[in-house]
Amino acid sequence: MSSKPGLPKGTRDFGPEQMFRRNYIIDKIKAVFETYGFLPLETPSLENLSVLTGKYGDEGDQLIFKILNSGDFLNKTNQEDYKKGSKEFSGKISNKGLRYDLTVPFARYVVKNQNDITFPFRRYQIQPVWRADNPQKGRYREFYQCDADIIGTNSLVSDLEMVWLIHDVFKSLDLNDFLLKFSNRKILTAISEYIGEPGKENTLYVSLDKLDKIGKDNVFKELKAKGMSERSCVKLAPILEISGDNRQKLEQLTEFIGNLETGKEGLEEVSFILDSIANKENTEFKLDFDITLARGLSYYTGTIFEVKPTTVQMGSITGGGRYDNLTGVFGLDGMSGTGISFGIDRIYDVMLELKLFPESEIAGTKVMITNFDQDTLKFSLEVLNRLRRNGINSEIYPDKSKMKKQFGYADKKGIHFVAIIGPEEATQKIVSLKNMSTGEQQRLTVDELIGVLS
Amino acid sequence: MSSKPGLPKGTRDFGPEQMFRRNYIIDKIKAVFETYGFLPLETPSLENLSVLTGKYGDEGDQLIFKILNSGDFLNKTNQEDYKKGSKEFSGKISNKGLRYDLTVPFARYVVKNQNDITFPFRRYQIQPVWRADNPQKGRYREFYQCDADIIGTNSLVSDLEMVWLIHDVFKSLDLNDFLLKFSNRKILTAISEYIGEPGKENTLYVSLDKLDKIGKDNVFKELKAKGMSERSCVKLAPILEISGDNRQKLEQLTEFIGNLETGKEGLEEVSFILDSIANKENTEFKLDFDITLARGLSYYTGTIFEVKPTTVQMGSITGGGRYDNLTGVFGLDGMSGTGISFGIDRIYDVMLELKLFPESEIAGTKVMITNFDQDTLKFSLEVLNRLRRNGINSEIYPDKSKMKKQFGYADKKGIHFVAIIGPEEATQKIVSLKNMSTGEQQRLTVDELIGVLS
Repeated sequence: MSSKPGLPKGTRDFGPEQMFRRNYIIDKIKAVFETYGFLPLETPSLENLSVLTGKYGDEGDQLIFKILNSGDFLNKTNQEDYKKGSKEFSGKISNKGLRYDLTVPFARYVVKNQNDITFPFRRYQIQPVWRADNPQKGRYREFYQCDADIIGTNSLVSDLEMVWLIHDVFKSLDLNDFLLKFSNRKILTAISEYIGEPGKENTLYVSLDKLDKIGKDNVFKELKAKGMSERSCVKLAPILEISGDNRQKLEQLTEFIGNLETGKEGLEEVSFILDSIANKENTEFKLDFDITLARGLSYYTGTIFEVKPTTVQMGSITGGGRYDNLTGVFGLDGMSGTGISFGIDRIYDVMLELKLFPESEIAGTKVMITNFDQDTLKFSLEVLNRLRRNGINSEIYPDKSKMKKQFGYADKKGIHFVAIIGPEEATQKIVSLKNMSTGEQQRLTVDELIGVLS
Repeated sequence: MSSKPGLPKGTRDFGPEQMFRRNYIIDKIKAVFETYGFLPLETPSLENLSVLTGKYGDEGDQLIFKILNSGDFLNKTNQEDYKKGSKEFSGKISNKGLRYDLTVPFARYVVKNQNDITFPFRRYQIQPVWRADNPQKGRYREFYQCDADIIGTNSLVSDLEMVWLIHDVFKSLDLNDFLLKFSNRKILTAISEYIGEPGKENTLYVSLDKLDKIGKDNVFKELKAKGMSERSCVKLAPILEISGDNRQKLEQLTEFIGNLETGKEGLEEVSFILDSIANKENTEFKLDFDITLARGLSYYTGTIFEVKPTTVQMGSITGGGRYDNLTGVFGLDGMSGTGISFGIDRIYDVMLELKLFPESEIAGTKVMITNFDQDTLKFSLEVLNRLRRNGINSEIYPDKSKMKKQFGYADKKGIHFVAIIGPEEATQKIVSLKNMSTGEQQRLTVDELIGVLS
């Protein structure tokens, strides 16, 4: 006898209860995506390594799961190749990898189908991705991403729609305790210029991104280590002290970067979002203009945003922003777009902690019919059929076991009702319906039964 | 500039239109699964090779996509390993593979969670699987499987439910032109015994499985090549000639194998299914008891069934049957079950050919709002918001482009309505709604607009 079979580390089974809850989240998000005119897309799990490699930095490349070429994969190698070590050798025996995110496959899809797509193109995509990361709490080797993008326009209206979208998604999930931080990469660019370090916005945002984690002092220490002058840090310090409500922050910031061209653009774009949000009916929007918000990814060029829950300890559950050149790497320039990604695993955890999943979403069996004997079976099957035809989730206990066992099964599975059909019921063409929570029992015709359970 | 990026062979992108149609099929099947009390399960795409290997025969093992171990995967190998060739070497550099089907992961799940599962366990699972097969028309390296199983009971009622399930699934898809063939493995076992080749039912069903393709003569040729005697073939011949309606076939078959114990069991089981189907209300069921139906897989032990479309040239679109020991390979014996698998890709092709997808299922944007200028934008955004809040799929053209371009976009995307908001409309708080098919245009308040589009 073999031992119990295990799972690869960092992977999970999703049993029925988890599936119902995950689908609850996914269905809600999909529904909002579709009211926003986003169209569904799915790309293959496998991509050519030529598509994946070089898009995620050296560190990312190491985390791509590579597929061994099929058949006699050593065929095209020799001992010299072998001696060159894993990195080079892998190029000889593997030419495909598992999807690492949904962004690169999306860019690949857009470039491949550029002649057939009507731009601006609004697509959503909800699929698993794989990373050979070290698994830890909340970090898996296989997990879902849930992205929406509008590509082929640089309109601020699209950025605004993303901010609205966040609002509508979390509203539909009844997840109201969240904070949406937003800013604009142009502001960081202008700040670099203002502090006398033009072109160093990348250095700046990589360090600022850690502000929450390592604190202001360490950010300055890191910036200096990266070659930023004392004078620049002195000029940066008061900007990091800016506070007040969104409008106040915007005004104070204007004093520093309002005369710089990029600064003006960034401030105007932030201002447009703030104005338009104010217009949204019935808004209880917790929108926070956060100058220090950086978002790690280097491809963002305009509006950036990030959502964190406020009453649960948890990192970002949603994020995104505007990019100017997602498809350039595949040879298609000038494709500006704006994108958003919902972290389904984390949203799941937050909703579980806040008890936001409605009980009714566990769409298991509503009623189980007992299996008494061969004579009653015919009527039992007839009732079963009619229930299902009326859309009532139902099953019959498949074996003629003792009633105690049959009731035990219904109880363990959390089935709400048991329809008892013994010889008397079968003869009279009725059922005795037992409510498993209250213990209450009533005799019903099949029509009445359907009425009660519908 | 790089060339257009391609896809790995045998893989596909699913664009919006295909996605809506695929989801239409999947949602319908899921809904029926759930009325039957099946619960959703998802297992990881990656499984340990120790779980996958040896379950699909030598040929199957060759088709498993293997994942290269991450990091310095050559670390634990030496030149001697390399020299041993691909097959042995792969064991040193890969310990995970991609899911090959949903059956083995399901068996693995059941064994792993045997103490927490309430049996009989009814689960459904709809996920992609991967096979390093040579791609050809209708055969892909990544494709979806859609399975439902009831495990932990040997009740015939469960077999019957599968036959019903097929009926209800295809009814919900409005796919009525199909033929359901069914039989029972016990009948093949009894036939082997009857023709004097007891224990050779495996040889028998492997050859009979090809009857449709290669014809009777070649089946006999093959059986003889496999060591079956002339005498056995002579005894088999009249059984293959059995014809008539289901009851007639059953009666004729009884004359041959009715006195054998396994034969009696098989005949009774077939009889039970036939009886119960006759009881199903409003049945237009094309159920065909086909003695020569074999189904290739060796693990079936009782009822087997298979569905083919009747008006479209296509192989089996659904199949399944009863198995006695799916989990034995993982050390858990005595788990009898019955399973079914719907071939989503093929069902898709059949429905496309028969034009069974309702137009309304393409849930794209229903109405596009024009983007006139900065002054009208505020009102346009207000209207957009109200439409979405009322569940109407809508978008605004993001740029202030020429109207011709905006209308061109709506036209190409097949958007049914365009809501024109120019200065006059914005001032009066109305929209001019244009029906893109009829060209008809009407002036509406926002409330009226919502009414028209709901």
